[in-house]
Amino acid sequence: MPDVQPMIEKVNGFKVAGVHAGLKKDGKLDFALIVSDTLCTAAGVFTTNYVKAAPVLLDMERLKHNSHRIRAVAINTASANACTGQQGIDNALQTARWVAEEIGCAEDEVLVMSTGVIGTQLPMEKIKHGVQLAAASLGDNWEAAARAIMTTDTRPKMASLMSDYGYQIAGIAKGAGMIAPNMATMLSVVVTDAAVDDDLGMVNDILKDVANGSFNCIAIDGDTSTNDTLLFLANKASSKFKNNETFEKDMGNLCIPLAQEIVRDGEGATKFITVVVRGAGRREAAKQVANTIAISPLVKTAFFGGDANWGRIMMAAGRAGVPLDPAKMRLWITSGERSSEDLLLFKYGTVANYSEAKATEIMQSSSITVLLDCGEGGPSAFVWTCDLSHDYVSINGDYRS
Amino acid sequence: MPDVQPMIEKVNGFKVAGVHAGLKKDGKLDFALIVSDTLCTAAGVFTTNYVKAAPVLLDMERLKHNSHRIRAVAINTASANACTGQQGIDNALQTARWVAEEIGCAEDEVLVMSTGVIGTQLPMEKIKHGVQLAAASLGDNWEAAARAIMTTDTRPKMASLMSDYGYQIAGIAKGAGMIAPNMATMLSVVVTDAAVDDDLGMVNDILKDVANGSFNCIAIDGDTSTNDTLLFLANKASSKFKNNETFEKDMGNLCIPLAQEIVRDGEGATKFITVVVRGAGRREAAKQVANTIAISPLVKTAFFGGDANWGRIMMAAGRAGVPLDPAKMRLWITSGERSSEDLLLFKYGTVANYSEAKATEIMQSSSITVLLDCGEGGPSAFVWTCDLSHDYVSINGDYRS
Repeated sequence: MPDVQPMIEKVNGFKVAGVHAGLKKDGKLDFALIVSDTLCTAAGVFTTNYVKAAPVLLDMERLKHNSHRIRAVAINTASANACTGQQGIDNALQTARWVAEEIGCAEDEVLVMSTGVIGTQLPMEKIKHGVQLAAASLGDNWEAAARAIMTTDTRPKMASLMSDYGYQIAGIAKGAGMIAPNMATMLSVVVTDAAVDDDLGMVNDILKDVANGSFNCIAIDGDTSTNDTLLFLANKASSKFKNNETFEKDMGNLCIPLAQEIVRDGEGATKFITVVVRGAGRREAAKQVANTIAISPLVKTAFFGGDANWGRIMMAAGRAGVPLDPAKMRLWITSGERSSEDLLLFKYGTVANYSEAKATEIMQSSSITVLLDCGEGGPSAFVWTCDLSHDYVSINGDYRS
Repeated sequence: MPDVQPMIEKVNGFKVAGVHAGLKKDGKLDFALIVSDTLCTAAGVFTTNYVKAAPVLLDMERLKHNSHRIRAVAINTASANACTGQQGIDNALQTARWVAEEIGCAEDEVLVMSTGVIGTQLPMEKIKHGVQLAAASLGDNWEAAARAIMTTDTRPKMASLMSDYGYQIAGIAKGAGMIAPNMATMLSVVVTDAAVDDDLGMVNDILKDVANGSFNCIAIDGDTSTNDTLLFLANKASSKFKNNETFEKDMGNLCIPLAQEIVRDGEGATKFITVVVRGAGRREAAKQVANTIAISPLVKTAFFGGDANWGRIMMAAGRAGVPLDPAKMRLWITSGERSSEDLLLFKYGTVANYSEAKATEIMQSSSITVLLDCGEGGPSAFVWTCDLSHDYVSINGDYRS
């Protein structure tokens, strides 16, 4: 298995930039541009929210007709360009147009992403300035690009790998709050120089499968943003490829740490929690129970407190809408990120005979795995999440100010 | 309309007590007993959680067979008696048996309620002590009973009314955290001396309708407890009654302020929020959108911060699972508890032209109403909720300790 690096040195045929366009008040990088030297095959996975931001609507439309002709992605912070009506669409189009003029391509070969406050129009003078600055400083500074898409993230999120078959895959992401299953305020762009399959259906299937096993397994607070987007661009610069199965595996190996890094850097997060549920019949049912546990404020605050108040996990499981029989259920916790039948807390309807000291020790570790067996057989499902801390409230209580 | 008082002086034919049985470490009242001089017609509404506490299972079973023969309700704090298996059931039965011995009735004429930590067995010596103390001090001190069922509540919750037709209705409740639509860690007992209908189906229907218009309209954090119970006891001591319609109206008038008081005293709550959604087609769809807005951590922290970050309301509406078209939607906020088309924030797909100063002024008031029109026609639905503050995290981060 190829090593995944938490940084990106260079990707064949791609150039990037992260600049300060004046969107963030504190002078930090706030506008990113990713450009391919040649036309890319592209695909996207988008928010399931019915209130979709203008850039999401634009990208969805462009990828319908233009999936083999994408050259660039422009990303701004500060404004989500959501709930902005026709003017928002016009502004997204204008952003793409400026990028096309700067790098010399057709305007419909450019995709856009936005993140920030919902309901404010893009400050177009600053966006124009950002496009010009970024186009003038294109290079291999992926970290600048990763920094330029941060909002309440505390650190840039990057990953890259060189596959055993000679192609590269690399990605940047942002997350922090509003992260929920089925995509959340999460932006990610993954690029490769692999000579991927020309079959668009296949590329889309791979991206969807990879997202389901990585970005769609994370949950911070149950909220789902208007802007979530995962974009994939393949410029085929290396001419290397093995087969779709290997490529999907490599993509997964890249996207899992990127997704987990979003959880680790969740707003106010102090702990990394893996929730594994099995024996709930169908996988969807197991996933629903796992999600409900992961987003329960009472469960999350117990994790924050380091308190082995496991009854709240049973409570959350019971309200997931999936028929469950406590008399068949068992619950374990363990330190670390792998599920194991370590410390049994609840067994077949009643509290197990466990060591409170050991339970507290596990609950106070920085990484905890919960394993719940519902006793009905069937596959397991998992969700990565974090705890709910004072800082989450502070960050979100005055996000706009 | 009869006046609802936030206290209870006396209810014909009922005696109550609230005592310190040693369940709470701080010496506060922790065990309550409500006894009717004569057999009552009784009904209950219980948690929808699949993991139901022993007292819930016991009461559900007793009310199936014994709805015209209930004499007493015993309520303990500190332990929820949930996830406690057969021993938990035995302990609930034993509690009822002790009450029956003390007050002189059949053991199946006693109901029980528990609230507190999930997964710990009832400390039976203390429970026995509590039953004896309470039986020895039965009287009209409803405030003591209301105090004795408090957990993280900061104040007792009581209400009473004298109807225009000569009967009384009175109730006590506890809530604080874990409050969600469809019942949550909420316990309430409502009693009346009215000569209610002997038709049990009718009594149950009235109770269900009243719960749907009061306790099921509140949401604190989206969590639903293993123990939620609303019990209703009618001893007919007054021989007074008008008709079912009037009685249901009176019950609603009593239960609405009780339910709202639970929200006002929600864990860490600093603001009372009314979310009204209309035009989402069916009422259930409107309710689902309202609930999703009400339990969104990002919406709740924005209210805590007093920040008119209304985009989060649109985000939450969009992820409710109800198909919505932003181009048809409008959003208003106003101070107070009644919905009105006061300050228009979002109109037909885009931000409205509103005064930011006025929006901030509204968001900083102690009571705020959100009105969302989804533009598809159809009835409105509402939810009462509160904001999400630092104190919620503090309270729940170390609840057990």
